[in-house]
This record gives sequence, structure tokens and C-alpha cells, in this order.
Amino acid sequence: MFSIPKIISQIACSFYMLFFSIAIFAQKPVDLVNPFIGTSNFGAAFPGPIAPRGMASISPFNVAGVKNTPMEKDSQWLSNPYVNENTFLTGFSQVNLSGVGCPDLGVILLMPTTGEVETDHLKYGSTYSNEVAKAAYYSVNLDKYKIKGEFTASKRVGVSRFTFPKGKSNILLNLGLGLTNEEGAMIKVVSSTEIEGMRTVGSFCYNSPEDAYPVYFVAKFSKPAHNFGVWKKPAKYNGVEAQWMGYNGKTRIMENTIKTVVGDSIGSYFTYKFDKEETVEVKIGISYVSIDNARENLERETGNKSFDAVYEETYNEWNEELSKVLVEGGSKDDQTIFYTALYHTLIHPNTLNDINGEYPKIKRSKIGKTEGTRYTVFSLWDTYRNMHPLTSLIYPKQQSDMIKSMLEMYDENGWLPKWELNSTETFTMVGDPASIVIVDACLKGIQDFDFYKAYYAMLKGADQIEDNPLRPGLKEYIEKGYLSTNYAGPVSTTLEYNTSDYAISLLAKALGKKEDYKRFTKRSLSYQKLYDKDLKLLRPRTANGKWYEPFDPEAGANFQANVGFIEGNAWQYAFMVPHDMKGLIKLMGGDKAFSDQLQKVFDLKQFDMANEPDIAYPYLFNYVKGEEWKSQELVKKLVKEYFQNKPKGLPGNDDTGTMSAWLVYSMMGIYPISPGDPIYTITTPMFHRVTIKLDPAYYKKESIVIERQENNEGKINSIEINGKPLNSFFISHEDFVNGTKLKVIQN
Amino acid sequence: MFSIPKIISQIACSFYMLFFSIAIFAQKPVDLVNPFIGTSNFGAAFPGPIAPRGMASISPFNVAGVKNTPMEKDSQWLSNPYVNENTFLTGFSQVNLSGVGCPDLGVILLMPTTGEVETDHLKYGSTYSNEVAKAAYYSVNLDKYKIKGEFTASKRVGVSRFTFPKGKSNILLNLGLGLTNEEGAMIKVVSSTEIEGMRTVGSFCYNSPEDAYPVYFVAKFSKPAHNFGVWKKPAKYNGVEAQWMGYNGKTRIMENTIKTVVGDSIGSYFTYKFDKEETVEVKIGISYVSIDNARENLERETGNKSFDAVYEETYNEWNEELSKVLVEGGSKDDQTIFYTALYHTLIHPNTLNDINGEYPKIKRSKIGKTEGTRYTVFSLWDTYRNMHPLTSLIYPKQQSDMIKSMLEMYDENGWLPKWELNSTETFTMVGDPASIVIVDACLKGIQDFDFYKAYYAMLKGADQIEDNPLRPGLKEYIEKGYLSTNYAGPVSTTLEYNTSDYAISLLAKALGKKEDYKRFTKRSLSYQKLYDKDLKLLRPRTANGKWYEPFDPEAGANFQANVGFIEGNAWQYAFMVPHDMKGLIKLMGGDKAFSDQLQKVFDLKQFDMANEPDIAYPYLFNYVKGEEWKSQELVKKLVKEYFQNKPKGLPGNDDTGTMSAWLVYSMMGIYPISPGDPIYTITTPMFHRVTIKLDPAYYKKESIVIERQENNEGKINSIEINGKPLNSFFISHEDFVNGTKLKVIQN
Repeated sequence: MFSIPKIISQIACSFYMLFFSIAIFAQKPVDLVNPFIGTSNFGAAFPGPIAPRGMASISPFNVAGVKNTPMEKDSQWLSNPYVNENTFLTGFSQVNLSGVGCPDLGVILLMPTTGEVETDHLKYGSTYSNEVAKAAYYSVNLDKYKIKGEFTASKRVGVSRFTFPKGKSNILLNLGLGLTNEEGAMIKVVSSTEIEGMRTVGSFCYNSPEDAYPVYFVAKFSKPAHNFGVWKKPAKYNGVEAQWMGYNGKTRIMENTIKTVVGDSIGSYFTYKFDKEETVEVKIGISYVSIDNARENLERETGNKSFDAVYEETYNEWNEELSKVLVEGGSKDDQTIFYTALYHTLIHPNTLNDINGEYPKIKRSKIGKTEGTRYTVFSLWDTYRNMHPLTSLIYPKQQSDMIKSMLEMYDENGWLPKWELNSTETFTMVGDPASIVIVDACLKGIQDFDFYKAYYAMLKGADQIEDNPLRPGLKEYIEKGYLSTNYAGPVSTTLEYNTSDYAISLLAKALGKKEDYKRFTKRSLSYQKLYDKDLKLLRPRTANGKWYEPFDPEAGANFQANVGFIEGNAWQYAFMVPHDMKGLIKLMGGDKAFSDQLQKVFDLKQFDMANEPDIAYPYLFNYVKGEEWKSQELVKKLVKEYFQNKPKGLPGNDDTGTMSAWLVYSMMGIYPISPGDPIYTITTPMFHRVTIKLDPAYYKKESIVIERQENNEGKINSIEINGKPLNSFFISHEDFVNGTKLKVIQN
Repeated sequence: MFSIPKIISQIACSFYMLFFSIAIFAQKPVDLVNPFIGTSNFGAAFPGPIAPRGMASISPFNVAGVKNTPMEKDSQWLSNPYVNENTFLTGFSQVNLSGVGCPDLGVILLMPTTGEVETDHLKYGSTYSNEVAKAAYYSVNLDKYKIKGEFTASKRVGVSRFTFPKGKSNILLNLGLGLTNEEGAMIKVVSSTEIEGMRTVGSFCYNSPEDAYPVYFVAKFSKPAHNFGVWKKPAKYNGVEAQWMGYNGKTRIMENTIKTVVGDSIGSYFTYKFDKEETVEVKIGISYVSIDNARENLERETGNKSFDAVYEETYNEWNEELSKVLVEGGSKDDQTIFYTALYHTLIHPNTLNDINGEYPKIKRSKIGKTEGTRYTVFSLWDTYRNMHPLTSLIYPKQQSDMIKSMLEMYDENGWLPKWELNSTETFTMVGDPASIVIVDACLKGIQDFDFYKAYYAMLKGADQIEDNPLRPGLKEYIEKGYLSTNYAGPVSTTLEYNTSDYAISLLAKALGKKEDYKRFTKRSLSYQKLYDKDLKLLRPRTANGKWYEPFDPEAGANFQANVGFIEGNAWQYAFMVPHDMKGLIKLMGGDKAFSDQLQKVFDLKQFDMANEPDIAYPYLFNYVKGEEWKSQELVKKLVKEYFQNKPKGLPGNDDTGTMSAWLVYSMMGIYPISPGDPIYTITTPMFHRVTIKLDPAYYKKESIVIERQENNEGKINSIEINGKPLNSFFISHEDFVNGTKLKVIQN
């Protein structure tokens, strides 16, 4: 036999050391996710399991309790199924939204109990302890019952594992209780191991109630129930009829029945009698098309797989997605908030189609079928700003499929989406943001969709005066350049239309549509008519063209309603012309005036980290030569102040990943400063090295590295791309992704 | 060629004459049915179409209107979807009960309208005119809309044909409105020609609310809708939540959607735009198992058949059933009330199983499958007295299948039925009547079922002390011979148990069970302990054996609640020992005392033609030699007074055909005086000749004729069987069905 040559032995040794050092010092990205981040301070994230862009998810549900207690869903506006501080748990909801500002979903509540069946959640609810939350896994102990619950999920199936003590135990499936005021459900126990049914959800933000829609499910239990049944609490009658009904308004327990039961307050129970500690696994397949599809989703995704096998698969899937960006340096908390933020950007938009490709078309007029992925939950007013640009960079295939989904929506109802949720258009917020998302991706090289069709879809939204659901007030906007106070939030809406029009102009230019290019470029600058030179702010005008009076620039902070602005005030919208910062600087009287006014936003504490209109402002000092350090300091300060490895570690609603995407970009040291424009502005990365793996289907290079000195906190002195000076705090997407290394050199 | 011999020519001529006379003078039995009979005076029949023992039926629905108006379903106890006097029609219900005393079914309301869609029945309801009701056919004009509606039905499918004027028209399918307080429905528009869904029904007599159950349906339209949609009126929220909901409690119109919608107040609309007068046919298949089965029922029963084709089939089916008895003589009104009564006895029990054999087992714990017919709607406290005996005589195969259905119920939940309704046991009324029905049929020769199993099923009901849902108070009954006032209606219940025990004793005897025979014979006579010699009435005793005080024999008339009796008083129950009339005569002190006391029932106006306990009393004079003429006169008088060819032509609730069966027997001149005993008592037939065709599978003879002189109104002078004197006003079933002619000869 040959002895191993020394050189090989040394290489082997180095490999061993490398492996060892990774094993010791670097955790897998998936292990750095802390799903508790954003579960307090109205972050509206949930700590339970979900697969990347999954349809199903499981959240502990602890927002239903005694009325008029803090953070109780019916006593105050609450958009999430879980609040970290709450203590009273009433189940585990099987479909959930993450980081939204309005309640929806948060239904199909599974709850294990012991003893006699109790169907009133105020009676069967329990305190809880020993919460553990990881990517694809959550576990908790229910104090009252000494039951351990563990939860994981595949894309369309939530999997629960309950460890019951010896004795009589129950698993309740409550279709009455839910996060919102929407009601109506159907349930049928198919056998002692299976339940099927549906629950009505919708009316997001209490809009479009007629679009309330069904979520279908099939639940399979690993062990047959000893007994099962259904309950229903009907409405209470009054008057003479009530006298005939001894049972008026009382809960009905229907034992061992396989009949279909419908109602607002219904559920089913499975009862077990255990001689010793036992576990039961419950798989709940979800579909927005039909019960049959929910069953097929369940069978094909999880079939005979154990809880542990499902968990392992989803865990690996998360790790693969999160490993598209590798960070080196920074504290463990830095890495945790980074990967948790990236995790949050991978929840919505999420999968709508069943595993067989079927999905409900917009407004459920028909069932569609996709070969790829039909995405849903497009909170575009939020996400056009950074979340979609981030997806284009790191997950371009997903971004492409999202655009295809948006174009399918256009095919289905004649309009691009605005705030699409499970094939309903909620028409929440203002503007016409889909155009920006599509142009941004297209100009970044994601072009495997019909961008001509997309272009004409944008034009329709931008030009059709009558019956245009996307752009109310369009006639006035085109005629005057702005919306008057006849419309809600006229300044905000004008700025949104400007931004969209700018994006359209960019695509028009790229497609050689010169007239459109000119027209939309001009339209994109009409905000200038709202510029009040005296205040150096944008200000609403009345229909006759006069400034709206009285005008308080500070009115409208903290989401207060005000004339002129949506979710913000004049300060928060003063710089929301990302595409024309140079024009704005000119309007304001040059760099100094601009810089001073921008600084005022922060000095006057008008900057709101928790909402989108001003979210890019910390980067705007990059437009003033010599003041870029202010952006660097501001971004660092804001990250430190608002983003932390704890439940309160998001500044507010995550807005389906928008806050998180801001953090991901900010920690990487780049920011998509003008959505639609394929350009980034640069700040100090918060890691020594960030490696972004690029998808070879869309990008030429395998990866791009962003680097800065280890342990250096100073201002940026210079920036290099591929070893050569950049001489700018801006870099085009093309230069960036075709580079090898972007290096930030600090003082 | 041969010339036709004269003799043959004469025969041909006679045939022609015969045919001609039938064509001219005799209508087909089916044409003599007047479904309006029993649609007033609380008869609770409905005038719309149904097939013999059909699952589906269509009734005009005119009992929902302005509250606190007479005969409005929510303002008073009302058990029927239609009242002849009412004027405000709000649709056509697709499942209905006939002649019951409690509201149930009366749901799935189809309603044609014109103009804009209106979903509030108080607004879309209409007056109506030109009602036509025939067996298997009903038509009406809706005044408000100038729409003609026509209706027919196959066994499991209701078929509607609407003739619309030119213009915009709608067909509403309202799942909110219904006869009862039970609510909850699901609906889904499958396509522009199809709707599927379910509606919750049940809680008959406001009992057993936990047994409320679904009726499934599929509706197919002959012409595709121009537009369709679903509406839902949700419950109204209060409190802080209500402030968030601009749409709180308001009806939602959901256009062109194929989503599943559930709720208490939901429906769908199909809208048409017609250039000229047009008809649309709507077929609604029904199932108590599933939507799939409802669709299969629809397809297999009516497939591509037109309205007219379905009508013709059901018309022929009715004629075939009704032609089992042919009457000659009497007025046209006599023939009409006779055939309408026979028609009413052929509605319930009705078919429960789908065309593929599937049906819900009791309490819907499982789906069963039958090769034959699974019958439902067993109002046995009523029907054991005469309706089932009549079925045994004329439709023995149906009676056999009904018994098999009852035994299946025993298999399914361990008990024979009491008041079974669509596989729920309503536990309405008292006693254990199934035994009587089974024994009666068995001793009449219907024995193609497992009568040993039936026997043990009876014994279980008669002997099991604990947890016996059929015979509450059984322990006391067995120990003391009667129920004390600790139980509701103790005298009535004791009499019912006695009657059942007598039937059991008869079967015990037939099966050679001597001990049981003795035991149950003895038990059947225990009513004697309740006989108050002073009053010559049966009277309740308290638990310590004393007569209940104070005691008013007249209390309890007209369905007033009272101690001692259920739906009756001491007079009305005084003779309800049909199996021991000779014993009662002896108790009362002989024929004269008996006859006097019996006469008092009538003289004191205590006789109630509208309820079952005393329904056989008019025949009891036949037990007193020389007084039989009183029975003859009484029966004639009662028929004339209470049974007429008009909507008020039933004495009250038809009780699923019991009143009608009384009439059929009474007009034929025989009556099953002691249910269980295969014996008839005889009175004057009201037709010159009645021919009963006998089923060769059960009876040896092809038919039996009952005859009396034409136009003779006198008392019965003598009775002959097969030309020989009978010398009795009683005849055994065996002698009767093996005879050729029963001839009643009057003075």
C-alpha cells in the first residue's frame, strides 16, 4: 500500500481545520433565525413554523381572551395571532399572515386539552411556558394540561405533534374562533382519523367584504380517536320563536357524526384515552381551491412522513434559501437579526397554488392552473421599495414567478395588483406600485416574462381615466399634475403616481417607446407643483389650485389621519421623490438647503422608521457630496435602535418583509435608493464580508462579495469595485452583479 | 278475405262501448287527486308536486311575511310551508313534510323575479293567482312579475319551469329563508348552469337540536345565466369591532364567483336577459348523503328529460299506485276525497336512500347502502293505527320495505324507531308503536323480513329497564302496571305500552313463545288498574297509587296540556284499549253501560276527529250487538263533516296520512279496529263497488271486491263474504284477502 504523501496529509489537515472552524464558529444560517423577532411592538410576525413562501403555517394563538384586556383581538385593532407578552393561549392557527397591519387569516385553530371536552375557548385556554422557536419549528408546554405541543410545516401542510399525559385527552379543531370578524365555516368528520372542512376569511382591513373567501382544509390524525364529534353554537333567537326553543343559543355537541355542519361558531373534537404518555401527530393540508386539493396537498407533500421528517425537509429548505447570502463577522446578534430579516422576506409573497397547480383566479370567478408558482400576498405599496428589489437580486427566479403571477392577475381581471391577498384585491393603500416592481426587475435583467404585455398593463393603469381601480383621481392628476384635496391623501397619492410613472418611463425608454418615455418622464416630475417654497415641503392643493389651509406639516405623524397624506405627514413625505432627488435638491435651493431640510426630519423627530414613505431617507445624504457619513451614521444608529434580537426587535409592522428587507440591505451596505432604477447607494456593511450567491439563470457571476475591514467603525473613506476605485456612493445593478467584490474602505 | 263474423263484431262493439263508457264517465284515479285538500285548517298538506314516497317535493312557500300577521311562520306555530288562505308567496321549497304537526324541512327556496336582483324576501315576495294543483303538477302565476311557474318532481328531483316575460329576469335560490328556526347553509355556483350546496334542517318539534342535519342539493338550469352570484347577510357585530366594519350586518352581493359561501342567510341568483318570452327549467336533485349523490340522483332520474317528460312519468307512476284501488259509484267529490286521501297515504314514509342506494344511518354516524328502499318519516304514534295496516293491504311490498328500514334502524342504533325523521329520532309523542306496525304486517302475511330479529328488537324495547329511550317509566309500568303522574301523560303512555305489549303477545304466540305470550298478554291488560269505576273512565294515579286529584275528565281537550294524558283528555282516551274491548265492556258493566259511555264521548263533544287517540271510536259500537248502525251513521256523518273536496277538507293535521288512511278505510267500509290484530270491522262502504288489487307476491287472490247496493243509504242489514252470510261486523284479514267479494246489504 502507498503511504499518504505529506503534502496531501497537510491539505487534509487544513480541510479539517477549516471544517472544524466552521463547525465551531459559524452556525448554519438556518440556525441563526429567531422567529420571536417581530412578535412584539406590533411587528406582527408569528413565531411558528412555515416553509419558505409557504401557504400553510402554524402560529400559537394568544390574542383571544377576556375582553378589554391589552392586546386582545376584539378589544383593540390587532393584526396578528400572537403577541409575545400575552399569556393566554387558545390554540394554534393553521393559516397566518406575517407582518401585516390588518387582521386576516389566523383561523383553523387546533388545541389539545385533557379531561372532559370543553368548547369555550375562554374556558379551555391555558397559560404556557418553555417556548422554543426556530426556523420550521416551534414548541410550547401548555401549563393547564401538561401537554407539549410541537409544530412544523411543509409548504401547504401544517404538522403538529402533541405529547399527552396518561388519561383522557382531546384535540379540538375550532373553526369559530379566529383573528378577524369574518365568520362562517363548514366541518365534517370523515373518519376517526380525518376531518375536512372550510373556513371563511377575508375582508382584510375591513375592506371588500363581498370578497370574503374560503380556505379549505383536511386534517389527518396519526392515531384514531376513541370518540369524536362536532359542536355548534348557533345564534340566539328572540321573540315568540325563542319560546319554542329550549336550546336557544346553546352549544350543541354532536357525537360520532359524519354529517356536514356549517355555522359561525363550530368545531370538532377528537378524544383519546391513553394508558400512558402518548403522542399524536396532526397534519393539516390547506387549499384555497377545494377540500380535494387540500387532501392532495397533504398526501403528496407529507404522505406517510413523520413530524421529524417533515421538519428536517423544511429545515433544509430554509437553510438552502438563507445560505444564498453568507455573512462573516459581526456579532451573533448581528447575524441573527440579519438572517431573521432574510427569513422574514421569504414568507410573503407566498404560494397560492396547490401542488397540482390549481389556484383560485382573482375574485374566484374560475380556477386557474399554473406550471410554476402562483404567488399571493402582494403588499406592493410596502414591498416595491426594497423587498422586491432584494428578491430580484438574491432570488430572481422567485421574483420572475411573482411578476408572472401579477401578469396572470392582469389577465384575470384586467388590472395589475395593488394589494392582492389570496386572489382578492384589497385596494389597501394608494398608488400603482406593480409597475415599479416589474420595471425594477426587468431592468435588472429578469426578463423571462412577457414584458410587452406587462408594459401595456402598466399603461392601462396609468392612462385609463374611467373605472380605474388602481388610480383614483387620475383625470385630475393628468390634467393638473396632482390630486387635489378632493381625494384622500392627495400629496401621497401624487408622489406614488409620479414614482410609478417614472418606472414606466424607464421601461418605455428601454423598449424604444420614445413618446411614452417623454410623456411619463414629464408626468413623473409633476410633484413639483406641490412644492411650497416657503415651507420647503410638499403641500396639498385644493381643487381650485390654492394651497390647502390650515396646514400643519406635523399633523399626520403616528398614522393619524390628515388632509394631504396617507400614513404620514408633510415631513415624512417631503423627500419621497426617489427618482428625482436632483430635481428636489434644485427645488430646495441646492445641496445645503436640501441637507438642512433632510436633517430637520430627523432633528424634529419626524422620521418614522416604522413606515415606508420615509424609509429611504437615511440614505439621502448620499446625494450631497461630503455628507455621505451622515447616512452611514444614521443607518448604523437606526439599525441599532430599532432592529434587535428580541421580540420587540422590529420597529413596527414588518409589512410583509419590507422592514426586514431594509435591514438586510442596510446590513449588507447597499440600498436600492430609487425603486425602478437599477441602482444601489452604498453605506458601511455591518459584516466584514457578505457573499451573495447569484442565480446563474439570471446572472453571469456565481457570486458577489461586499467587504469592509474587520472591526472598523469609521466613516467610509473610499469604495472599490473589483479593486478599482468607484468614486461614487452609487453603483448600478449591472456593475454590481457583474463585479467580483465591492469593497468599502473606512477611515 | 274473410268477412268478420257477426258475433265478433258484436263483441268488438261491446268492448268499444265499455271503453267509451270508461272514457266518458270514469276518470283515471290520478286525475281525481286534488292536492289542495288539507292545505288549510292546519291539514299541513302542500299542493305542490311529489312522486309516490318521493324524497324531493316542491311546495309554494307562502308562510313568510310581515311578522304578527295570521298564519305567518314566525308569529305562530306553523308546521307547513303553504296555507291556502295566505297571499304572499316568497318561493318554492324543494323538500317538504306533508301533514305533520311540527315544522321541519321547507327549505331550498327557488324564486323567479324580474328586474334588479333583490335578496330580501319581504321585498321580492309577490301575490299570486291561477293556482292549479294536480298529482305531480302545480302551477301558479306571480302577479308582481308576470311569471308563470310550473312544477313537477321525480322521486329525488324537483323540476321547475318558469315562463319569463321579455327583459331582465332572475332565479333566486334562497338558503336563508326556511320554515323553521334551524339555520346554516353552504352554496357554490359551479357554472352558469349549475349550483350545489347544502342546508341544515332538523330539530323537529324543537327537539334534539344536536341532531340537526344537512340536506344536500344540486340545481341545474336549462339555460346558462347571463350573470350569477351569491349573497350573504352576516350577523351584526356590536362594540368596538363594529366600528371597524363599515359593512357590519349588511347583505353582501358576490358577483360571478364560484367560491363556497356558508352562512345562515345566504343564497344565489341567476340572472337572464331575454329578448322575448322565454322559459327556463330548473332541476334540483336532493340527497341526504352528499352533493355528489344529489348530482347523481339528478342525472340518473332526470338526465336530459324535459319538464313534460318528468311530469308524464310521475303522473303515470301516481296513476299506477292509485289504481290499486278502483272505486265505482259515489259522487265525483267522493271519488276526489278518496283518491286524494290515498295519495296522502303515499307521501310518507318516503324514500331516504339515493338512487345508488346510499343513505345516512341513524344519527349520521355512517353511510349505509340498501338494495331496496330505505324509508324515512315514521310518525308511528299516528300511523300504526291505520296507515300502516292500509299499506300492508294495498302496498305490501312497501310495507315490507318499511319494516326492513325499521329493522335497519335497530341495527344502527339499537332501538326500533319511535318518530324517525331522515335518520334522526325525534322522540316525539309517547309509546312504543313500532312493534305494533311490525306485528300487524307480519300477522297479515308480510313475512319476508327477519321477524325473529324483529321480535327480539321488540322485546328489547319492552323489557330493558335502564337507558330505554322508547319506554320511559318502564320500571314502574312493569311493577305497577301503569305509569304514575311522575311521568308525562301517564295514562296515555300506559295505554300505548298496553297496545304494544298486546301486539308483542300476538307475535310471541305465533312464534310459539308461550311464556312471552302469557307475560305480554297480562301486561297488555294492566290499563284496568287505571279504570275508575265511579267515573267509568281511565284516570291517572300518583306514585303512591292514589287517584290523582283534582281530576277534570274534560281537561286536555284541544291539545291543552294536562296531567294524565298526551294530546287528549280522559274522554278521548277512555276507550283506547283496542285490543281488549270485551274486557273494557265488562269493566264498564256490560254492553249498555259501555254503549252509553261511548255515546257520551260524542254527545259531550269530546270526540276529536283531528287526533289519533279516539280516531277508532266511531267504530266501537260494532262491539255492541244491535248498535252497529250507530257506527255506520257516525262514520258517514264524520266523513261528511270533516272530509271535503276543498282546502279545509281534512279535520286537522293529516299526521303523515293517518287522517287520510282513516278516510280511505271508512269509505271502503272496513276499518282495522285493533292494530296488531289482523282483523277489520265493517261499516257501509261509500261506493257501490271498491276493487282492491292484491299484490301476488303477498296475496293469493288477484283482487278483492267490496260491494254495496247502488244508491242505498240505509243501515246494514246483512254482510256476505263470497256470497255467504258473514254473521259478524268483523272479518279476519285472512278471510278478507282470500275472499272474492265482501258484500254489504242494506235495508
